Amino acid sequence: MIGRFLANGKIYEGRFELKGDRLVFDSLELPIECVKFLPPVSPTKIIAVGLNYVDHAEELGMPIPEEPIIFIKPPSAVIGDRDPILIPSLSKRVDYEGELAVVIARRCRSVPKEKAKDFILGYTCFNDVTARDLQARDGQWTRAKSFDTFAPIGPYIVELEDLSKLRIETRVNGEVKQRSNTSNMIFDVFSLVEFISSIMTLEAGDVIATGTPAGVGMLKSKDLVEVEIEKIGVLRNPVIDYSEKL
Amino acid sequence: MIGRFLANGKIYEGRFELKGDRLVFDSLELPIECVKFLPPVSPTKIIAVGLNYVDHAEELGMPIPEEPIIFIKPPSAVIGDRDPILIPSLSKRVDYEGELAVVIARRCRSVPKEKAKDFILGYTCFNDVTARDLQARDGQWTRAKSFDTFAPIGPYIVELEDLSKLRIETRVNGEVKQRSNTSNMIFDVFSLVEFISSIMTLEAGDVIATGTPAGVGMLKSKDLVEVEIEKIGVLRNPVIDYSEKL
Repeated sequence: MIGRFLANGKIYEGRFELKGDRLVFDSLELPIECVKFLPPVSPTKIIAVGLNYVDHAEELGMPIPEEPIIFIKPPSAVIGDRDPILIPSLSKRVDYEGELAVVIARRCRSVPKEKAKDFILGYTCFNDVTARDLQARDGQWTRAKSFDTFAPIGPYIVELEDLSKLRIETRVNGEVKQRSNTSNMIFDVFSLVEFISSIMTLEAGDVIATGTPAGVGMLKSKDLVEVEIEKIGVLRNPVIDYSEKL
Repeated sequence: MIGRFLANGKIYEGRFELKGDRLVFDSLELPIECVKFLPPVSPTKIIAVGLNYVDHAEELGMPIPEEPIIFIKPPSAVIGDRDPILIPSLSKRVDYEGELAVVIARRCRSVPKEKAKDFILGYTCFNDVTARDLQARDGQWTRAKSFDTFAPIGPYIVELEDLSKLRIETRVNGEVKQRSNTSNMIFDVFSLVEFISSIMTLEAGDVIATGTPAGVGMLKSKDLVEVEIEKIGVLRNPVIDYSEKL
């Protein structure tokens, strides 16, 4: 794994291993419950894909798109594992969207999908938190998806060879809300790298959020939302009202 | 003025003055034609406003919006004065959109419009270059507005007290295509800072592009596009086909 974490009052960054309930980083060995994972990347941009699971398209009664629909979430929205998602007073309906995130390894442009693997550092969990009511009102999705705390990512980056058949699940307060498999993706990870890098230069640490499966739904104050991806990990975030934070 | 420029093989950054056709920076005095201005900021995000001039809304036969519609352009799209706009092979219609840009002075969130001035470093010219055909095809505007070179900004930042009545003009090969005034803005600069900072934390150097007036139109290879704003300056960019660059 690759990540950043806080332990014993210090920030550590780099490769580590998990051995049972212990984290091993160089000569350091820590109980995992004593570690606070920080966002594993500081992206210059997060490019997200709108509709990329067959089951989610069916759920919405939408046709399978011929090309990916992309939008951008700002770096100011990034939070890490265990950090709270704040529900803004502007919205009456804030939804979770569990997603697989791709982390770019180094600057690239116009990458053919056959070479995409060379430019990927690894994978992590992502929650494309969305103010559904504002998304409908605006038509454009940017406002609905750009509030501070609306881009939980982590807990850490995992290097994987085969992305094609990973279980992905989103739970709210332990109850399964989304359960799918990356095999249901319409555009696979390498095709997305090709598509997006044909538009814009990608930088080291940039993130591609690959779309959410069926089962999106609402979050409310005091919920705990978890995005789990097989062979990667679990991203956990509590939810609180912005007004309660003040 | 505040900016970054290349002269005598070095990069200079900071405040300078223009005296006739000479640039004065500390003890340095240079003929302006020997200076290459670089993008005056490195934004973590560019937040652009979709429809913010009465004349542009009338031109499109659209109602005056009740709230600003925002979208994000990525930092990878930024170029400076005199840098070429590259027409991607994916698009058959790339348009100019001359705009006033606001540069944020320091980190802020939830700024009331009465205090917005305290968080603004200054103003510059911006061209919200847009692949009009892809904008129509996607519905979402992000792809159409995110190609590399689609965010020309500069030539430098000017500190101004009164933004309410500035002439704004876009020319292609010397011919006037857009001619309006910031007094035609639907949401003024301070209201936009309030609106956007209620959604997301703004960082020093972040840019708000405040929308384009009537008269948008197409660019083709070998054009020279100029965005001029009264009391600020002229942003000039040549246009070339991406294929010709290779």
